Amino acid sequence: MQWNNLLQQIQNDNVKALARAISLIENEYEGYEDFLKLLPFSNKKIIGITGPPGAGKSTIVDSLINEFAANNNRVAVLCIDPSSPFTQGALLGDRIRMNDWYNNPNVFIRSLASRGSMHGLHPKIIEITDVLKAAPFDIIIVETVGAGQIETEIARLADTSVVVLVPEAGDEIQNMKAGLMEIADIFVVNKADRPEADKLVKNMLAMLPLSLHEKQKKAPVLKTIATEKKGIKELSEKIIRHQQTETGKLKSFMMHAEKVYKLIEQKRMSDIDIKRLAAEIEKLSADKNFSLYRFAETFCK
Amino acid sequence: MQWNNLLQQIQNDNVKALARAISLIENEYEGYEDFLKLLPFSNKKIIGITGPPGAGKSTIVDSLINEFAANNNRVAVLCIDPSSPFTQGALLGDRIRMNDWYNNPNVFIRSLASRGSMHGLHPKIIEITDVLKAAPFDIIIVETVGAGQIETEIARLADTSVVVLVPEAGDEIQNMKAGLMEIADIFVVNKADRPEADKLVKNMLAMLPLSLHEKQKKAPVLKTIATEKKGIKELSEKIIRHQQTETGKLKSFMMHAEKVYKLIEQKRMSDIDIKRLAAEIEKLSADKNFSLYRFAETFCK
Repeated sequence: MQWNNLLQQIQNDNVKALARAISLIENEYEGYEDFLKLLPFSNKKIIGITGPPGAGKSTIVDSLINEFAANNNRVAVLCIDPSSPFTQGALLGDRIRMNDWYNNPNVFIRSLASRGSMHGLHPKIIEITDVLKAAPFDIIIVETVGAGQIETEIARLADTSVVVLVPEAGDEIQNMKAGLMEIADIFVVNKADRPEADKLVKNMLAMLPLSLHEKQKKAPVLKTIATEKKGIKELSEKIIRHQQTETGKLKSFMMHAEKVYKLIEQKRMSDIDIKRLAAEIEKLSADKNFSLYRFAETFCK
Repeated sequence: MQWNNLLQQIQNDNVKALARAISLIENEYEGYEDFLKLLPFSNKKIIGITGPPGAGKSTIVDSLINEFAANNNRVAVLCIDPSSPFTQGALLGDRIRMNDWYNNPNVFIRSLASRGSMHGLHPKIIEITDVLKAAPFDIIIVETVGAGQIETEIARLADTSVVVLVPEAGDEIQNMKAGLMEIADIFVVNKADRPEADKLVKNMLAMLPLSLHEKQKKAPVLKTIATEKKGIKELSEKIIRHQQTETGKLKSFMMHAEKVYKLIEQKRMSDIDIKRLAAEIEKLSADKNFSLYRFAETFCK
């Protein structure tokens, strides 16, 4: 594989080369790690759009594409939400204006299958977004459903995390979505024409300043009606503003560090097969002096 | 520190020694790792009780203590749920019969502060449950609130995961609680005297066989009214039966393996300070040939 050549094509806006590179990484094609090492460091920002299914994330993403593209931005979108119309998991009626985007040269959309929610977002999501950064896009959006372990990963991936809620979510906020709430740089209450919307916004504005997390205290809460494109312009402006703030910049280098940490973790742990480990432990456990902690230590020497 | 001595005291049912050992581990007292290496391998089972706040987990734990203790079992309970009356985070009126247990020599209760939900359950939870296993308890229960990343950790920790839901949860099941649903070995619909209970049970029984996860297809769904101790005997029996099944035993060795994996991960990654990594990256990023992937690789050689 001519990795240098592939990278050049991507940098020259060859969409097929980009799609191919993503597939090669997804499938861990032999030598793909050499390709990754060619990727120049980039400080381009990732926008994460997350929230429970049915909150209207896809409609928001659709409207954001529209808004950013109208301002002469080239936009790339990765979808890892199984219920998103982008990933074709949703009802036909939901499939908004997707087809238009697929034919628009300034918009690139790619769906990724999430590989089981127990294992989080997508095993190669960081690498794939890094490839997108090498292509000439101004805006990169990742849409995911917020659940389980995914929040931590989105926090690690997105420079600006937008958490989309719906008015009905009011009562849940104190509990199930704690993880989701913590990662938000910007909150969006979508479907804001529904009766409960103002109450939710009011509750959030009362609650956020009490948060233990510095960034949450100041996180803006926006109202949108994405189906009517209401509030979308303001959302796009808040996103850009967040990326330009000191907090945004600081977060960015911490995120690069966490990314590297994750890569190191993958590499350092790649020699361990959990099933073989289990078989080994089962065998050794017959010895009454066997200690798991001593056993773990033998791997680290 | 006389670690051998401490272990012997714990094995001889010295509760103060046990409490002290837990504190030493929590605070990473110098040499605590030598103590861990003394812990003999144990196949004792951990029961995890998890679910959203307000589901009645604590009342279920309270009733289970009662049930197990009545059958001459010695019971240890760890609470990591900030809303649990055991951790004194709840309203006074909720504080059930806790005081009785604190004075009962056959019951040991310990609350652990969760160290921020972004970092999961508790950094030393595995080690602490291993100390409990060294003490003469028959039953070990860990109560946690189900949210964020915690599900994966509970799945790694508990041999039998009991997920407690309330009738009102019906609509949420399809979405936010996906992570929570996946880890359940046993489902409990608590507050089963409420009108929606039967509908929820019916929906779950229809849904579970369609699950992709083998164990979920067969997961029992029990109804309880914990405040009246209804359904608790059956729950305790299902828990014990689950631990004795082949699935339970198989799961157990995989869990030991995951535990060791986690320990190895901690050790292998312990030389990395994310903040210093971020500073280093910021410095190096001035070089236009800088690559995060090459940088990550330098750590793994």
